Amino acid sequence: MISFLNDYSEGAHPRILAMLAQANWEQNEGYGQDAHSQRAKEYLKQAVGRENVDIHFLAGGTQTNLVVISSFLRPHHCVISAETGHINVHETGAIEATGHKVVVAPGEQGKLTPEAIQTVIDYHTDEHMVLPKMVYISNSTELGTVYTKAELTAIHEVCKKNGLLLFLDGARLASALTCKANDLTLSDKARLVDVIYLGGTKNGALLGEALVICKEELKEDFRYLIKQRGALMAKGFVIGIQFEALFQDDLYFRLGKHANDMAEKIAAILKDYGYSFYVPPCTNQLFPILPGETVDKLAQEFKFYIQKKIDDRHYAIRLVTSWATTQESVDRLRQFFAGACS
Amino acid sequence: MISFLNDYSEGAHPRILAMLAQANWEQNEGYGQDAHSQRAKEYLKQAVGRENVDIHFLAGGTQTNLVVISSFLRPHHCVISAETGHINVHETGAIEATGHKVVVAPGEQGKLTPEAIQTVIDYHTDEHMVLPKMVYISNSTELGTVYTKAELTAIHEVCKKNGLLLFLDGARLASALTCKANDLTLSDKARLVDVIYLGGTKNGALLGEALVICKEELKEDFRYLIKQRGALMAKGFVIGIQFEALFQDDLYFRLGKHANDMAEKIAAILKDYGYSFYVPPCTNQLFPILPGETVDKLAQEFKFYIQKKIDDRHYAIRLVTSWATTQESVDRLRQFFAGACS
Amino acid sequence: MISFLNDYSEGAHPRILAMLAQANWEQNEGYGQDAHSQRAKEYLKQAVGRENVDIHFLAGGTQTNLVVISSFLRPHHCVISAETGHINVHETGAIEATGHKVVVAPGEQGKLTPEAIQTVIDYHTDEHMVLPKMVYISNSTELGTVYTKAELTAIHEVCKKNGLLLFLDGARLASALTCKANDLTLSDKARLVDVIYLGGTKNGALLGEALVICKEELKEDFRYLIKQRGALMAKGFVIGIQFEALFQDDLYFRLGKHANDMAEKIAAILKDYGYSFYVPPCTNQLFPILPGETVDKLAQEFKFYIQKKIDDRHYAIRLVTSWATTQESVDRLRQFFAGACS
Amino acid sequence: MISFLNDYSEGAHPRILAMLAQANWEQNEGYGQDAHSQRAKEYLKQAVGRENVDIHFLAGGTQTNLVVISSFLRPHHCVISAETGHINVHETGAIEATGHKVVVAPGEQGKLTPEAIQTVIDYHTDEHMVLPKMVYISNSTELGTVYTKAELTAIHEVCKKNGLLLFLDGARLASALTCKANDLTLSDKARLVDVIYLGGTKNGALLGEALVICKEELKEDFRYLIKQRGALMAKGFVIGIQFEALFQDDLYFRLGKHANDMAEKIAAILKDYGYSFYVPPCTNQLFPILPGETVDKLAQEFKFYIQKKIDDRHYAIRLVTSWATTQESVDRLRQFFAGACS
Repeated sequence: MISFLNDYSEGAHPRILAMLAQANWEQNEGYGQDAHSQRAKEYLKQAVGRENVDIHFLAGGTQTNLVVISSFLRPHHCVISAETGHINVHETGAIEATGHKVVVAPGEQGKLTPEAIQTVIDYHTDEHMVLPKMVYISNSTELGTVYTKAELTAIHEVCKKNGLLLFLDGARLASALTCKANDLTLSDKARLVDVIYLGGTKNGALLGEALVICKEELKEDFRYLIKQRGALMAKGFVIGIQFEALFQDDLYFRLGKHANDMAEKIAAILKDYGYSFYVPPCTNQLFPILPGETVDKLAQEFKFYIQKKIDDRHYAIRLVTSWATTQESVDRLRQFFAGACS
Repeated sequence: MISFLNDYSEGAHPRILAMLAQANWEQNEGYGQDAHSQRAKEYLKQAVGRENVDIHFLAGGTQTNLVVISSFLRPHHCVISAETGHINVHETGAIEATGHKVVVAPGEQGKLTPEAIQTVIDYHTDEHMVLPKMVYISNSTELGTVYTKAELTAIHEVCKKNGLLLFLDGARLASALTCKANDLTLSDKARLVDVIYLGGTKNGALLGEALVICKEELKEDFRYLIKQRGALMAKGFVIGIQFEALFQDDLYFRLGKHANDMAEKIAAILKDYGYSFYVPPCTNQLFPILPGETVDKLAQEFKFYIQKKIDDRHYAIRLVTSWATTQESVDRLRQFFAGACS
Repeated sequence: MISFLNDYSEGAHPRILAMLAQANWEQNEGYGQDAHSQRAKEYLKQAVGRENVDIHFLAGGTQTNLVVISSFLRPHHCVISAETGHINVHETGAIEATGHKVVVAPGEQGKLTPEAIQTVIDYHTDEHMVLPKMVYISNSTELGTVYTKAELTAIHEVCKKNGLLLFLDGARLASALTCKANDLTLSDKARLVDVIYLGGTKNGALLGEALVICKEELKEDFRYLIKQRGALMAKGFVIGIQFEALFQDDLYFRLGKHANDMAEKIAAILKDYGYSFYVPPCTNQLFPILPGETVDKLAQEFKFYIQKKIDDRHYAIRLVTSWATTQESVDRLRQFFAGACS
Repeated sequence: MISFLNDYSEGAHPRILAMLAQANWEQNEGYGQDAHSQRAKEYLKQAVGRENVDIHFLAGGTQTNLVVISSFLRPHHCVISAETGHINVHETGAIEATGHKVVVAPGEQGKLTPEAIQTVIDYHTDEHMVLPKMVYISNSTELGTVYTKAELTAIHEVCKKNGLLLFLDGARLASALTCKANDLTLSDKARLVDVIYLGGTKNGALLGEALVICKEELKEDFRYLIKQRGALMAKGFVIGIQFEALFQDDLYFRLGKHANDMAEKIAAILKDYGYSFYVPPCTNQLFPILPGETVDKLAQEFKFYIQKKIDDRHYAIRLVTSWATTQESVDRLRQFFAGACS
């Protein structure tokens, strides 16, 4: 069975494994204060086009989200998220477990709008309600869409005007940055947000996320806060080496583009056979709408999630490609639809 | 410079790297529900001699401690720890951050006693004080000592009598189980404690701890609680494979024994040159007492921590060996003392 | 200016003040273990028709809600509330501050339905999402409506079937129990819910809520949990005396009925003048819909909140009566509308 | 039986009851925004000799402590307390429940020293440990002792030098300020600390503590934080009126002095009969050391706590006087000792 379940099914890009093996017998400093992590941070600073940022490596996305949000908010502050935001639905209340309400605003295909953010802010008028202090967005979103430069700038403006922090969850940032709809550079993002993370787990690393703190006031004592949440790894160099591998040249971006290319091919096949999409194809997550019987047949050869029941006879499914998706897997999908639709 | 700073300076045992490479292109289930994790759990059940335990893989020690303690206590419950316990001093208040007080009892060379535990219990008499509900011990301890079977049994008894849970932090369990002073088997431990973890990070894995829940009532919904603390890794198989590698035969124990053997050789050298110890040598952590000038010279060739100032002229230092410590490093230390003491 | 802002503007029923004065020089046990609190609990047990309940006195509503919810849930559990539920909107994230997500279900005029509850339960399918474990309802609701016996029974059933606790916030229970639409007795409620509180603050006490724990498993150690949240009052007898005063006969219910009677008179006036209501009048909170200019004029003589803008020319306002509302205040309102509508 | 258990056994000073009765039918603004609370704040500003402070009324001591500490610390910050500090032992982990470690420093007769504080600060060297950010002291202390101006100034200096906040728990401040050993004025205190509360519950109020925030940076959004912890009372005027009564003239201080005077008389009696003290008498808490048989006899006529077993034959007991202690009660105690020692 070929899996299109997600982008974290395979191990790591071979270069990462090779560099881990090569460094294996070195004696590295603990807790991320090693030379590899240091070099990786230098590469990342070049990539984001800024020297005056703080960079920390963490193990996973939910962990990064909860460390970031709980570190920068006072107890009465809430974070605003789209209804579909990962922190709202799929983190088992991780943010609330640190004491903060996630206030939901309606999203458009997974994306927050400045209007929706302003509406939430306006609704929270006094001390009987939480005080909005941070906006959480993901890019690409949980529905595979991306923010344009104009959209991100508008959100930046509404945050700035109201004194809110802007946090970008980049678990799938590589895919976002390399998709055709994208008009944002990494340095644009580092300029428009206060804190951002670049996902490694979903883009070819065994594990690891690179958190970039752009806003000066947020930098203080951050290692304490990582440690307190159990997120400061003794062998921090294991993540440092991986980001060194990903950013010493443009590997990180090539892997993201590969996932997008494979998704584009699949989208083309589906369009050829006349299928529509729950959300327009954009990055490495596709949401085609298929008849129930086709879904059933597909499930005999491929793994994927059902996203949503559309009507009595149709379902939107989710197909995810990754840095590791092969042409062969795409061809097998083509063959399936050739058979199913003949 | 040769480092005796800790047991997490090097990467991973070569077999682990080989197995990660071998599995690299497989498409594994996410979140630890893959075949490797499953096999690793089977091996671990054999190792602990029980089928009716639940096993979960986590990324690190502080993370495991905070997930365990916060999951099994109600809000008004506290956990009892030795003063030297890792959760008391070196986790940046991670346990308190989940809402629970760590109540300290005096330890003897890092070990809790039943008497000290009972004293804490007796002191907490009413609802104006927290209610002791769990005892936290580490084995080997933060001072390198180990519990004997009699000692652990006595602690088990005092816990049972008072309705307290017993949690054993086994970050350095491999070293504890394979040291000469040890008279406990892994299955003894699984019988005497309610929950225990077997450390991988400090015994040859890139990262990972294997948590074993022995008590039936504690098993419910544990994956929710892992997820909520950001500790459920998308690529859980990365840890699963490593524990598969460590437990498919006796590699885990051989690595622990290697660390102990190297420590024993170093202890012998130090004794030969007449040095005494802050705590008697037992496992892979040594605490020799050296004159200040010797410490200074040693620091020019070797990395290590100063544990404690003993008097105006002497310091206890900490030397830690690991699964990766080489005979050459031991020999270099021997040469140093031969020179320093000639 | 006459205030219809709320039901906590005045002090306390004279009998309460008299009993406080009478007991003033007694030396009472601290922390609620005095004879007055004991007697008040006996009266309350008679009122709820059960002996096997535990009763505790707390200072206020938000405090009671957060103590209850945080005491009975494990960290990964959430509580289900109507969108309009007090814990969702008007407690500054008090529940989330104790670590728990409030999951919202659509309400009907402030009331939850079994269908909405079941939908939330069904949506939460795995460990990546919080686990619903408690349902929070208020009666009367934040919109002044009440649950019928059939409705509460149906909610009880859906909770029981799914293993959820049912918590009834009775900040305005006296008004609910004595309104014409009510067909529930206090003992019905104590049978159908797991935990309930009877509000004193909004029904003639200086402060105080009486929490009744009906479910055996929830009783353990509850005083610890009150204390930990800063809610165990040194002079607990101050609340005990007040509930003694309210429940030694039917004063509690008479005060609730008085508020309802005053509201009914006001509703009749408003209906006479042809106004409709945002929510049908039922208890002591009225939500008439008035033209903007009438609202402006009314605001020159009376205090009240604007609940919602209905359309460009109309607003729903909130008028609240209380145990202390006078006939004179009602008459003044009548005069106002006589003038405004002539 | 006459009780010397505590200073919260009786109701309230008659003037307080009278003023509550007088204001009973007023319609006051909710949540502490009424005219009485406003006036009480003006009186308090005069009493502390500063206009630029923020004042809030809360219901009790543990509540005030947890709101203050959790509001002003970031997650990785700890608070330093004497071993005997109320927050360390007698609040059921209330501070830890908000996420913060209480780090203990040895006290001298209940008082912290600058040296002990500095030692704790020096010990916390890196991000693996919590970061000290606040010092908590009580005055009078849990052992009835008071800080001198020199002592408080020295603590102020060590806090300032190290960037720590200084919080003074004044549950028994009236007694501290009016005892003979005191050389501090209320305005001295407001100058030397960052935040302080003046206890009402233990000095003649039914309930209530007046929190004074002296440091500008701590004032922001504080009402949100009160509300979130369930501490913003709907009928806030009930506490406002009481502090109006206590501070419209010097009643607050007279009540404190009365308690001290009664204690002084009792101390004189005990000294007359040759008893020594566990801690030298100073304020309204006395800790005489009595033989076991005397303790037993005393317990037949009086209520009190046993503080500590001194040796096989002697116990230190605690006798507490209050604003309500009568000369008759003192005389009865004198008669007892006359009889017991004849």
